[in-house]
Amino acid sequence: MAKEPKTAIIPTREDDYPEWYQQVIKAADMAENSDVRGCMVIKPWGYAIWENIQKNLDQMFKETGHKNAYFPIFIPKSFFEKEAEHVEGFAKECAVVTHSRLEDDGTGKLKVAGKLTEPYIVRPTSETIIGASFSKWVQSYRDLPLLINQWANVVRWELRTRLFLRTAEFLWQEGHTVHSTKEEAQIETKQMLGVYAQFAREYLAIPVVEGEKTEGERFPGAVNTFTIEAMMQDKKALQAGTSHFLGQNFAKASEIKFQSKNGEIEYAWTTSWGVSTRLIGALIMAHSDDNGLIIPPRISPEHLIFIPIYKNEEDKVKVLAYIDGIVNEIKPLRYHDEKIRYNIDDRDMTNSEKGWYWIKKGAPLRIEIGPRDIENNSVFVGRRDKEPKEKQSYSVKDFTGQLIQMLDEIQNNIYQRAMSFREKNTFMIDDKDQFYKFFTLKDTEKPEIHGGFVNAHWCGCNECEEAIKGDLKVTIRCIPLDAKEESGKCIYCGKDSKKRVLFAKSY
Amino acid sequence: MAKEPKTAIIPTREDDYPEWYQQVIKAADMAENSDVRGCMVIKPWGYAIWENIQKNLDQMFKETGHKNAYFPIFIPKSFFEKEAEHVEGFAKECAVVTHSRLEDDGTGKLKVAGKLTEPYIVRPTSETIIGASFSKWVQSYRDLPLLINQWANVVRWELRTRLFLRTAEFLWQEGHTVHSTKEEAQIETKQMLGVYAQFAREYLAIPVVEGEKTEGERFPGAVNTFTIEAMMQDKKALQAGTSHFLGQNFAKASEIKFQSKNGEIEYAWTTSWGVSTRLIGALIMAHSDDNGLIIPPRISPEHLIFIPIYKNEEDKVKVLAYIDGIVNEIKPLRYHDEKIRYNIDDRDMTNSEKGWYWIKKGAPLRIEIGPRDIENNSVFVGRRDKEPKEKQSYSVKDFTGQLIQMLDEIQNNIYQRAMSFREKNTFMIDDKDQFYKFFTLKDTEKPEIHGGFVNAHWCGCNECEEAIKGDLKVTIRCIPLDAKEESGKCIYCGKDSKKRVLFAKSY
Repeated sequence: MAKEPKTAIIPTREDDYPEWYQQVIKAADMAENSDVRGCMVIKPWGYAIWENIQKNLDQMFKETGHKNAYFPIFIPKSFFEKEAEHVEGFAKECAVVTHSRLEDDGTGKLKVAGKLTEPYIVRPTSETIIGASFSKWVQSYRDLPLLINQWANVVRWELRTRLFLRTAEFLWQEGHTVHSTKEEAQIETKQMLGVYAQFAREYLAIPVVEGEKTEGERFPGAVNTFTIEAMMQDKKALQAGTSHFLGQNFAKASEIKFQSKNGEIEYAWTTSWGVSTRLIGALIMAHSDDNGLIIPPRISPEHLIFIPIYKNEEDKVKVLAYIDGIVNEIKPLRYHDEKIRYNIDDRDMTNSEKGWYWIKKGAPLRIEIGPRDIENNSVFVGRRDKEPKEKQSYSVKDFTGQLIQMLDEIQNNIYQRAMSFREKNTFMIDDKDQFYKFFTLKDTEKPEIHGGFVNAHWCGCNECEEAIKGDLKVTIRCIPLDAKEESGKCIYCGKDSKKRVLFAKSY
Repeated sequence: MAKEPKTAIIPTREDDYPEWYQQVIKAADMAENSDVRGCMVIKPWGYAIWENIQKNLDQMFKETGHKNAYFPIFIPKSFFEKEAEHVEGFAKECAVVTHSRLEDDGTGKLKVAGKLTEPYIVRPTSETIIGASFSKWVQSYRDLPLLINQWANVVRWELRTRLFLRTAEFLWQEGHTVHSTKEEAQIETKQMLGVYAQFAREYLAIPVVEGEKTEGERFPGAVNTFTIEAMMQDKKALQAGTSHFLGQNFAKASEIKFQSKNGEIEYAWTTSWGVSTRLIGALIMAHSDDNGLIIPPRISPEHLIFIPIYKNEEDKVKVLAYIDGIVNEIKPLRYHDEKIRYNIDDRDMTNSEKGWYWIKKGAPLRIEIGPRDIENNSVFVGRRDKEPKEKQSYSVKDFTGQLIQMLDEIQNNIYQRAMSFREKNTFMIDDKDQFYKFFTLKDTEKPEIHGGFVNAHWCGCNECEEAIKGDLKVTIRCIPLDAKEESGKCIYCGKDSKKRVLFAKSY
């Protein structure tokens, strides 16, 4: 295979996938590490993507009856101790506030003072603190269902961090709902998984496998955890969102009780579900290429970038006026109910620099306009889903007439490309040797790109799951919701199995 | 004056203003105290108001060229020590993170572990941590101006807290900008003060005085602090937003330098500006009455509430279908570029309970519809800017035709009422005895309602300001921007003065 002589991102995906990821973020100016252990700074281009994720997800949450609220960032230590499994799972690497004051020590330095009687934990997730409120809010079946979402920052002090994928502080939303029956809570859990899957497909252009986590991979304290799993371009899986059916565990820990229609006092049934700024990491790794970021139009901060081309002041005035005319035509247009987002890049740089600047940032459309275009009443269009050189001339009329369709085409192409990639790298394996060979590196392979998704039979026991994880660093990503019943033999122990599950290496 | 026999909020403003405030929040179900010292829970109705504040302010920020970004919640202690005045002002009552882990002590309890080498402070404001990023982002005059905003939570451990007005954790936005010249930074500072003033007037329907803080009331580390001051119904002032010109102080502390056009390395000029969930407190205290919350339509979570009235299932079907018809007519309408926000309240409650429920929540319009309205092709409209009983019948055609205008009328009435109240309670005083008498309680007065705004002469010295503050708990709220030059004598010491300043008791 002939290799492109030059790419905007060095190294390429093939040469060094993890480093390529960092370089894409840097080239698109999306985020950077900070001076605070494991915490990132989300720069304007990265944050604008998050704002679009927020806006659209928020609308989907509201359409399904949820309301936003805000709860304290601090959780008293004793709250954590209420739910035993939750303690195990979350109360490990977290930020502990022990003091309430700093005092000038007289030399301009500050010393820590004002010890708190009870330490506070900066929320790693809010089940326990929200539970304390819900126990007051819920009295009767008339108060149910209670459907609440919170947009917030959370902190989990991870040892190894990577921008967007795993950071000490991250931004997320956490839904928390309370129901009078088990069935209703289960329906809610699945509904929100469906919302996440739909959002991933339609907005992020990422195909996902919906499924249930095994017992070993469940959220601490949950009865069932559901997940959406996406394939990155290094063929690893990334968990992009989770939805938990919490049974009555947290209701019991937080005393969320209600009087039923029959007048009896019962514990309620709760759910929680969340996605985070990790979605931006998923987006980068699912779509971007060796020239930088590729953003699906539906969540791109800009839909199109005008690049005016001129050599003198006279031409500049003409070109900018011509662009204004086109802008006036696209202003009334709506792309999925939203205004067209555009930018006229009139900075003092060469045209080539500008073009590459926006390619690296992943803008869906680049519209170059020079004096010749004015003569021809045309525009010169570069699409981010095509090769940088593959630009096409349109008459202004065709361009404005086809703009919406073009954006949809780009969105769809990006999705289809990710889908094809996943299909090409998803296998059914029934033989243990073959399974082990598949997930074991050959000497010739790059360490970070190999493997893929494997649907294989599993007996359902934790021992086999752990053995595979220990041997290969491969985990069961999920038991797909659409896995069909079929008899087979566990890929590890050979015992009977009724379903295939999804195995992969993962982030 | 005849007193209303009954009000929905007990006590009334006159009987006990601070308690009235708490009861309005409770009756409207906006927020509550949490189990975490000084932290509040913002409930859905309160949070929806914040979302509308955010959405509209955010648009104004973007229209003035600002972009959102996100910076770490933690600030290393050493960062605080860089700016001397800032240390004085902020590094006092704050949340200090000293440990990074909790460990199971074997009995199901958790013990604090993993001591950090350097303590982190939960941001009380982000100048220092953002400065650390800016020093990397800014290299050349071409990188300027840098216009950034952050929506975030901050923590300041106040001793006495009050929902929305003063809480340990609150939500806010903080703008941080960097400029190549002093003049440009000063223009930015004033521009953002103007944005706040416009937002307060046009959206919150609160008239504000724009002015500069005295040296004693400045933001720690600022060269100039500007403020918008609003009058509450107890005649106290509330600082509703501030904008700071920071000179080169923070640029020097954080090493924000740039190469000028001439090739010289210079320190940059910075600004910061912020408003918070305190605006919701201002909103409540500026407009609400003894029947509860009053929300200006432009930021109300709902514009109108339909209350279907029926006695049997047959009527119910008819009434709901009739409402659907009206909804279809108002759906295409736009109120200041936004969709009409409505709610059909079909809960199982009496009509009177429902009416009062929405009066207490401050919804601008209540639309009652029963079988008789269907016969007459009419609707029965209650407006929150009028007395609860003062309802009016409209033909459906007139109602839908006049809806937008009606919302604007309500918005305007609320503003005018607040403006009249302020004008009635703003005085010019030139005599020291009169000034002292004005701000001293008479035995017959309720402790919380007296006084007002006083424009009086001040010589400009800190001693007079402090003496008045010590004697009367009255502060100089600001030196109004529109104060005209006139010669007079300082209200305290009698020395020459060139301008009047605004004195008041305050929150």
